[in-house]
Amino acid sequence: MADERLRKGIGALRSTEALGHEARKAALEAIAGAIDGQRDLIHRENGKDIGRARDEGISSSLLHRLELTDEKIDSAIKGLLELRSLPDPIGRVREKRELDPGFVLEKVTFPIGVIAMIFEARPDALIQIAGLAMKSGNSVVLKGGKEAMLTNRVLVSIIREASLPIVGREWILGIESHEDVNAILSLDKEIDLIIPRGSNAFVRFVMDNTRIPVLGHADGICSVYVDGDADLDKALPICIDSKVQYPAACNAAETFLIDSAVSDAFLPRLASAFSERNIIVHADERSLPYFKDGIAACEDDYHTEFLSLECAVKVVDGIDEAIRHIQDHGSHHTDAIITESEEHKRRFFLSVDSADVFCNCSTRFADGFRFGLGAEVGISTSKIHARGPVGLDGLVTTKWLLSGHGETVAEYSGRNGKAFHHKDLI
Amino acid sequence: MADERLRKGIGALRSTEALGHEARKAALEAIAGAIDGQRDLIHRENGKDIGRARDEGISSSLLHRLELTDEKIDSAIKGLLELRSLPDPIGRVREKRELDPGFVLEKVTFPIGVIAMIFEARPDALIQIAGLAMKSGNSVVLKGGKEAMLTNRVLVSIIREASLPIVGREWILGIESHEDVNAILSLDKEIDLIIPRGSNAFVRFVMDNTRIPVLGHADGICSVYVDGDADLDKALPICIDSKVQYPAACNAAETFLIDSAVSDAFLPRLASAFSERNIIVHADERSLPYFKDGIAACEDDYHTEFLSLECAVKVVDGIDEAIRHIQDHGSHHTDAIITESEEHKRRFFLSVDSADVFCNCSTRFADGFRFGLGAEVGISTSKIHARGPVGLDGLVTTKWLLSGHGETVAEYSGRNGKAFHHKDLI
Repeated sequence: MADERLRKGIGALRSTEALGHEARKAALEAIAGAIDGQRDLIHRENGKDIGRARDEGISSSLLHRLELTDEKIDSAIKGLLELRSLPDPIGRVREKRELDPGFVLEKVTFPIGVIAMIFEARPDALIQIAGLAMKSGNSVVLKGGKEAMLTNRVLVSIIREASLPIVGREWILGIESHEDVNAILSLDKEIDLIIPRGSNAFVRFVMDNTRIPVLGHADGICSVYVDGDADLDKALPICIDSKVQYPAACNAAETFLIDSAVSDAFLPRLASAFSERNIIVHADERSLPYFKDGIAACEDDYHTEFLSLECAVKVVDGIDEAIRHIQDHGSHHTDAIITESEEHKRRFFLSVDSADVFCNCSTRFADGFRFGLGAEVGISTSKIHARGPVGLDGLVTTKWLLSGHGETVAEYSGRNGKAFHHKDLI
Repeated sequence: MADERLRKGIGALRSTEALGHEARKAALEAIAGAIDGQRDLIHRENGKDIGRARDEGISSSLLHRLELTDEKIDSAIKGLLELRSLPDPIGRVREKRELDPGFVLEKVTFPIGVIAMIFEARPDALIQIAGLAMKSGNSVVLKGGKEAMLTNRVLVSIIREASLPIVGREWILGIESHEDVNAILSLDKEIDLIIPRGSNAFVRFVMDNTRIPVLGHADGICSVYVDGDADLDKALPICIDSKVQYPAACNAAETFLIDSAVSDAFLPRLASAFSERNIIVHADERSLPYFKDGIAACEDDYHTEFLSLECAVKVVDGIDEAIRHIQDHGSHHTDAIITESEEHKRRFFLSVDSADVFCNCSTRFADGFRFGLGAEVGISTSKIHARGPVGLDGLVTTKWLLSGHGETVAEYSGRNGKAFHHKDLI
């Protein structure tokens, strides 16, 4: 039975945190070296995947992602070596408190355990994800896009063999079939966290079909609100950047809300800029006249993640209507206000219930690298555990460690019991 | 339809964080005052609950928990006023980083949103929970034990009416029926977190029947391992305290693992101490001869949370077998090692995958108040979000707030793009 085989394979995985940071760093270096040294093998297997994908007529954009060029390998190796030099995310003391003299409580970071990562047909993502798992002492179950099956298989094998002599335990497992993905969704005793990447529909499917905690986001319906107190010279490039800089990204803006106080001044400029860039605009009744090729917007357009040079525009009467619109239509990912009013900025920051809330800059900044997190695990729209762009911190949990000298609760109980002194040491 | 009514009621709840800490403090004070001022009404309703419970012949221990004495009211009021004086858990800046001069990113704590708390028939718990929610700016859905229905109803009404003039919004909702509990488990769009308290079976039911994140624990199968390098004079009182100080608590020990290196020296002392306290012992083959009224242990005994003066004992050959036993039988709640060996302590701390891992002290210390967390929301065995005893921190999430002056990602892209300087400000 596939389930039992998988359960056994996952059950055999072991965390690597106990080996210490030096061993995990050495493993990252060995993995980088092995990938560098076995480029020929990787290219050969990748070539087979590409050949088959071509025969099956997949799109050129998918083909482009599937191809593991030397440049991509260089960049993946560089990523591993950068990860190597980051500080150890494990064993960090987050709290330290004396309960009583010499009776010390610490809250210390540890790996979460077994993390399952399901990702699209980009073999370089596999290298990055395996590196993140090794850095954080977690073991990992990897499922990449089926188009990259042979490339993924050889990569997992190279990574496993390069690290095994150093870590001395199984910590990485590749799975390949769609059935195996369905099977792991039910392994809530064995798997501690799932990180799915890919289409909205796929992420939603994972979220809806597992009891394992999921780190990720399905929709990225991001809005830019141009306030009545906006500096319109700032607003225009921000609107353009949020939409066109990389329209397929989850943090690209889909909806532009324009305060009626500035709509007459701003919409002609926005319409002209969007028209130059061939952006299809779904506009509400009040903004439609400004967009000569605009389409009358329907309610659905404000719930749509276009992921392309297409967007929705709506005129609102002030900040409260803008906030309400975002609460009712957004996906709690990233929303921005353009304003010179400190009071409006403050209200927007407080009231918009999204992972990232920005003022006077592009929504496209919602990204782990731009945020300076070192490495990005993913972007989470959950309010639990990790929210927004998530760095290595998202792959750790904590333990409470308490060191005593024979203390009992009975001593600290009752009328004449000892009192805790609870002295924070950090 | 019950579901629709409930969905509307919950949909009308609003967070109170935007009002600021002073308003939330004032609300806590007003609630404390109103409870103090309406003791007669509370006692009258509580008396009706008690009368009905007596007629239905409920146990005296349940009756004891149900009765809201003046002493319990005093203590609940004291709790509210203590909460009032704790620092604001909301608006704390956890990270602050300049991405570029004047372009500032902050990670700031915010309320999670709507929290559902389901708790046993202890009306004083309702007051505490409502206070925690108000302090953290969350809104709350409360379901207490059905035996306390009238008391809970009047308490919710007093709390709501005392706070409404200050907060100006609905933030608390009491629900009463079993059907409503089942209904809220499906409201994963409306409810952000569920905190269930009560029997293991009930918590497990909640965990197994909702997609809403659950903060809590089902089982508390805690172990004490007496190492070969233990100071047996410390080990004995710790074993006793872990078992007898409050056997019904989740952090009481259920299993005692004794290293064979010290079993001959330690088991006679343990047997005598346990016998004096009338503890029923399920002992493995090697330890059974020491316990004159001992019962031969079966595998199930090591998976059982006795919650009474009953326990399991097993002789193990060294620390590795102890760790393996805990991994295979424990519930990742609280486990302790008794040892004078720094190396064994370190290995136990690293390898035991539990929320709380202790050395040379009683498992009973696993508690938010003893840990100095100020107020305890619950104890979580999840590795996600919050683990172990959870204070007000467990009721908050974060937002990333980014304040710019017109920055676009395009400026920071490509060969000649600007570079981020990523300067940490805290």
